[in-house]
Amino acid sequence: MEVFVPFSTDRPKSRLSGVLTPDERAAFAHAMLRDVLDAISGAGGEPRVLATGAVDADLPCPVTVDDRPLTDAVNAVLDARLGSGGKAEGDEEPVAVVMADLALATPESLRELFAAGREADVAIAPGRGGGTNALVVSRPEFRVDYHGASYLDHHRIADEIDASVAVVDSHRLATDADEPADLAELLIHAEADDEADGGRAARWLRDAGFALDATDGRVGIGRE
Amino acid sequence: MEVFVPFSTDRPKSRLSGVLTPDERAAFAHAMLRDVLDAISGAGGEPRVLATGAVDADLPCPVTVDDRPLTDAVNAVLDARLGSGGKAEGDEEPVAVVMADLALATPESLRELFAAGREADVAIAPGRGGGTNALVVSRPEFRVDYHGASYLDHHRIADEIDASVAVVDSHRLATDADEPADLAELLIHAEADDEADGGRAARWLRDAGFALDATDGRVGIGRE
Repeated sequence: MEVFVPFSTDRPKSRLSGVLTPDERAAFAHAMLRDVLDAISGAGGEPRVLATGAVDADLPCPVTVDDRPLTDAVNAVLDARLGSGGKAEGDEEPVAVVMADLALATPESLRELFAAGREADVAIAPGRGGGTNALVVSRPEFRVDYHGASYLDHHRIADEIDASVAVVDSHRLATDADEPADLAELLIHAEADDEADGGRAARWLRDAGFALDATDGRVGIGRE
Repeated sequence: MEVFVPFSTDRPKSRLSGVLTPDERAAFAHAMLRDVLDAISGAGGEPRVLATGAVDADLPCPVTVDDRPLTDAVNAVLDARLGSGGKAEGDEEPVAVVMADLALATPESLRELFAAGREADVAIAPGRGGGTNALVVSRPEFRVDYHGASYLDHHRIADEIDASVAVVDSHRLATDADEPADLAELLIHAEADDEADGGRAARWLRDAGFALDATDGRVGIGRE
């Protein structure tokens, strides 16, 4: 299954600007992207980066540049892959779209997503807050709309074309690294996973001096 | 499987005090408790409420009152159910502990938890922020410690007694209704689930005038 990973090269993680400089946000975003690409490959998917501009890094997969807004760029991909190619309905190989900041994504959680997307016409892993963090589509009439509560919009769009929807209930896929509290989430799971060093993004955070801080009774992050 | 649901009768959801009065918080907490008890029964579990004081409501299951702090009350339950009853190791029926504010819990997500708890010595559904939202234990030496990053502490405690740990990756079980943003989560999933009215907690919120509000581009809640 082809798995497109939208990646913004010009607006890196602005909601982390309180804790990371612009250069740090770019480096952290790259580390997360690499983790997501690895998890996709580990789940048997074929990752493709869908970037808004040239990516200044060696990536282990093809990169397509499309500078349009996220919704337009993803719909162009769906159209190219699922659109009127003369295939009979049901013959399309599903296409997946996975966000680049799902730093907790694992091959296991993505395998569940891909499997759901082979059963239903549309599979969605909702993000916390009503977003659509990962999606698998096999119906050419389906169109994405990432603005606002896209999880609800994607249910509605699927209903309109009578497409079946499977929801993937995963904390890992629901967690995107948008805000400082999400960085704590990343460090918590890297520590719990018992891996010596966790993924690139967790390593990057630790190397940058971040550590879990539970001194006020709730778990947050501190920086040396 | 017996499933204990700790319920505080005296400190209801103080982090929601910015949006709900004390009476409203108590009513909302009751609605969530009832939803959780229903989901447990739907998953084939036998719910038992473990309350800090007398519960002023008709509940569909036994209620035990223990006014000690959460950690002590849960450890007393584990000790009574798994403790030195002369059973050979491995013969214990596992015991589950599920928090009363998991308003998104479904029979399906809890069935996954219970199944994990029959395979491993300890199964944990982490909460967002490093908490332990749901737990299944079959080893009598295991003890809970709900203070701080309990998810990490429970991994450590399991390691110390050489107990195997299964992690249940569920956004529904990771979401406890602690803060106003969590109320939005509840309304989002009630709407997406296509049920005419959702669970009691979502209905309570809607009856109290709450609705999703995406006017600033992010999804939050507003109240009439």
